[in-house]
Amino acid sequence: MYIQNAWYIAAWKHEVSQKPFARRICNEPIVLFRDKSNKIWAVEDRCCHRGAPLRFGKVVDSGLQCGYHGLVFDGKGHCADIPGQQNIPAKARIRHFSVVEKDEFIWIWMGEASKADESLIIDYPFHNDYKNWPHKHEVYHIKANYMLMVDNLMDMTHLAYVHVGSIGGDTKSTHSAKMETTRTDLGLRYVRWMLGVKPPPTYSKAVPTLAESVDRWQEFEYIAPGNIIQWSGATNANTGAYDKNLREGGFSLRLFHGLTPETESTCHYFWSTANGYRQDDPSATEQLFDEIARAFQEDKVIVEAQQANLDELSDRPLVDVVSDSARIHMRRTVDRLIKKETL
Amino acid sequence: MYIQNAWYIAAWKHEVSQKPFARRICNEPIVLFRDKSNKIWAVEDRCCHRGAPLRFGKVVDSGLQCGYHGLVFDGKGHCADIPGQQNIPAKARIRHFSVVEKDEFIWIWMGEASKADESLIIDYPFHNDYKNWPHKHEVYHIKANYMLMVDNLMDMTHLAYVHVGSIGGDTKSTHSAKMETTRTDLGLRYVRWMLGVKPPPTYSKAVPTLAESVDRWQEFEYIAPGNIIQWSGATNANTGAYDKNLREGGFSLRLFHGLTPETESTCHYFWSTANGYRQDDPSATEQLFDEIARAFQEDKVIVEAQQANLDELSDRPLVDVVSDSARIHMRRTVDRLIKKETL
Amino acid sequence: MYIQNAWYIAAWKHEVSQKPFARRICNEPIVLFRDKSNKIWAVEDRCCHRGAPLRFGKVVDSGLQCGYHGLVFDGKGHCADIPGQQNIPAKARIRHFSVVEKDEFIWIWMGEASKADESLIIDYPFHNDYKNWPHKHEVYHIKANYMLMVDNLMDMTHLAYVHVGSIGGDTKSTHSAKMETTRTDLGLRYVRWMLGVKPPPTYSKAVPTLAESVDRWQEFEYIAPGNIIQWSGATNANTGAYDKNLREGGFSLRLFHGLTPETESTCHYFWSTANGYRQDDPSATEQLFDEIARAFQEDKVIVEAQQANLDELSDRPLVDVVSDSARIHMRRTVDRLIKKETL
Repeated sequence: MYIQNAWYIAAWKHEVSQKPFARRICNEPIVLFRDKSNKIWAVEDRCCHRGAPLRFGKVVDSGLQCGYHGLVFDGKGHCADIPGQQNIPAKARIRHFSVVEKDEFIWIWMGEASKADESLIIDYPFHNDYKNWPHKHEVYHIKANYMLMVDNLMDMTHLAYVHVGSIGGDTKSTHSAKMETTRTDLGLRYVRWMLGVKPPPTYSKAVPTLAESVDRWQEFEYIAPGNIIQWSGATNANTGAYDKNLREGGFSLRLFHGLTPETESTCHYFWSTANGYRQDDPSATEQLFDEIARAFQEDKVIVEAQQANLDELSDRPLVDVVSDSARIHMRRTVDRLIKKETL
Repeated sequence: MYIQNAWYIAAWKHEVSQKPFARRICNEPIVLFRDKSNKIWAVEDRCCHRGAPLRFGKVVDSGLQCGYHGLVFDGKGHCADIPGQQNIPAKARIRHFSVVEKDEFIWIWMGEASKADESLIIDYPFHNDYKNWPHKHEVYHIKANYMLMVDNLMDMTHLAYVHVGSIGGDTKSTHSAKMETTRTDLGLRYVRWMLGVKPPPTYSKAVPTLAESVDRWQEFEYIAPGNIIQWSGATNANTGAYDKNLREGGFSLRLFHGLTPETESTCHYFWSTANGYRQDDPSATEQLFDEIARAFQEDKVIVEAQQANLDELSDRPLVDVVSDSARIHMRRTVDRLIKKETL
Repeated sequence: MYIQNAWYIAAWKHEVSQKPFARRICNEPIVLFRDKSNKIWAVEDRCCHRGAPLRFGKVVDSGLQCGYHGLVFDGKGHCADIPGQQNIPAKARIRHFSVVEKDEFIWIWMGEASKADESLIIDYPFHNDYKNWPHKHEVYHIKANYMLMVDNLMDMTHLAYVHVGSIGGDTKSTHSAKMETTRTDLGLRYVRWMLGVKPPPTYSKAVPTLAESVDRWQEFEYIAPGNIIQWSGATNANTGAYDKNLREGGFSLRLFHGLTPETESTCHYFWSTANGYRQDDPSATEQLFDEIARAFQEDKVIVEAQQANLDELSDRPLVDVVSDSARIHMRRTVDRLIKKETL
């Protein structure tokens, strides 16, 4: 079960060209392509003639041409040409999906086309601002349900265990953090403040001028179905970050996490890292990306193993703990949205 | 569902020796072997004692000896020896299959033994004529139903898309070809004539004396369940190939295609290429084989992807086009033969 | 179906340390670990919080700490700590299994804890006697049901076929051996005597003083569910081995075989080889191990292929032969023990 009437990230902008590009989304095999005018389209990765995948085809003037017998489909999924044949049957068409290019993402709408409202797509202007937020991006294939990755990213308590050697903090400061949580229509937002703590190794390495004691924040917003916007940073303790919103001059990074279901037990994880502390130093942007990539590989291992256990031992009870409240709220949000669609 | 009362190709002659050789045919695990007098037999690849595969066994005087506990089975599947035991129970037997060696093939009959009529095996005398038709052969494993390969081979319209760089022609000449089709009891035969066309690169390379304009034919016969006999060639335009059957002196090749089901979604593809244009030049025979092998690899990629799509999206409708008429007739032939058996 | 109330070998002693060690037993994912006092414990490889495998965790003072969110479980499966939370719910517990360290094995009880009687564990004192029985051990993963391996090991008739080049004898002496069989509560024991026979190549190579004619014994005991104790050897013919139990001075080896189900179609095969003929020569111990390893690889190939055939062709009848009587008795023993548990 997936939320259908929602925008998911289908690809990074650079992944889609006039060469057809296949990706499975919400268990639907899809092929994305740019037509001759570079407009992006998404259709079913299956020719309606003999079932061949269209990813082996090529873009021609009238659309995407199947690489088997040459039928052409336009971006709306209508057959535009059958070689050697004048008449094109009306039923010669395939599924198509609305796609929008925005903020370096290709967004796709998996539900009813009539409801595909572009204004519902979230804003992430930092992807258009290479001056203040130089960034890099990536996509990982994860063998786990996308919500296990949402759980992972929105939960800070795992840092001390999974990421003990990289981005992790110590258990004590993690659990004594100040937490301000706001529930929203499509999820929730929180800011965690750790005041007067030792900065993690990554931060100190990135900003050598950082003091021994910092005020550290982690701001996260989850927007269903699969978006998480993160702003993390630290400034020297007692310089106004917490009480006066003065968050400049220290360490500051923005992470975007986009989780798109591939199947019930696999997902695509689109992420970017933006360097907000040494913008003029390309090596800082690279280094941030590399450190985060390393941490995400740690997440991938444990989350994939968790999925395998959940798949196999689905009848065994699980026990919630106190720090699960955000997770529980997010699951309820998704369940509510799915229920709304299936009524 | 497979046609049972039919001869399938089980192997190339050279594949079967006194060393047991296993191959799955129509989803039946089979082991082929030559006895001490070099006669070929085919039995179930399973000892009836403890289920061990007989392919680990060895040929002894009385038949094939299981490599686990030494039971021996003759070519008819009857147990001929149980080590350490005088009495051989009547039920100690395994399935056996009629096999015939002919024209470099080992043919196997998968149905009722009493109906295994050798005279039903098709003739392919070119395999016995190395002087006029020097040839090479091969077997490919294809992850697709054998009828998808039959579709592919009997359909010329894909050449312009799948084989555009090798044996393919241009779309226009493909669809403007003269087509003479004859339906038969076990399939159909057709000749396609492209008169006054440019020869494809392969032809010109093979026969440098070929003119810029040729009369080109493609003669195909499908004989159910899995045989396709192909004769393709070209002579200089207007030299009588079409109207006077004068097909010598140009380019000419014969291809045999034998498709044998392994499972519902995989098959064995036996094929040979015979050089009928430079018979005295072994390098021409090699070169022809290599070019065809390259083209068949292109087919394999698209047909296997087609099978995967059909497997997964079996509930989605497909749309026939005009050029599907031969394909539809072949499918009806196979369906009719299966229905006849299951009545 | 597995016998639950029984001791299985879970691991070799050296495999388990304070680093968690995962192994699936009777289709249960289990993690074994030594606590800070080096006592061994076995619990479910699944944290009851979010299902993450505990094998990614680490041993802390109070038990095994999950590598995801830091919950700690003691060796009895009770949650001992939830980071950031005082109250530990009573239902926060996971399965635990009794384990015992004995004779270099870690034994595990898969059934009701109250019935886990250590005195039921078989004795194998030779593992504690490196002076008289220097030995090496190994564990193989076998893609076959554990009882197919028991069948294999308890059956001598396969030696002449599967191991013809290594430990095998000739068919004639195999089937003319004297056999003394004793049925027991948990299986059976037999001694096979081949009197006045030629020693197999392995024996002669190991003990060059061995005569051309020897009295050879193979003593096997199967103890359900998965233990086989083997003592094989030979002394010069007519020197009292058979009638006066004088079995010293020739070739003598002890093999332990422990078969532990992993799943219905896979198992762990724990085995050791003890050198009882040239105890002061470490190279003899090595060489024995290497020869036996080679033979077991031969068994692995045929038994895994047998399992695949049985899985696929489970509806086809099998035929028992005379030499199957031990095998049939062992299967009845296991069936009786399973039935006793499920009444």
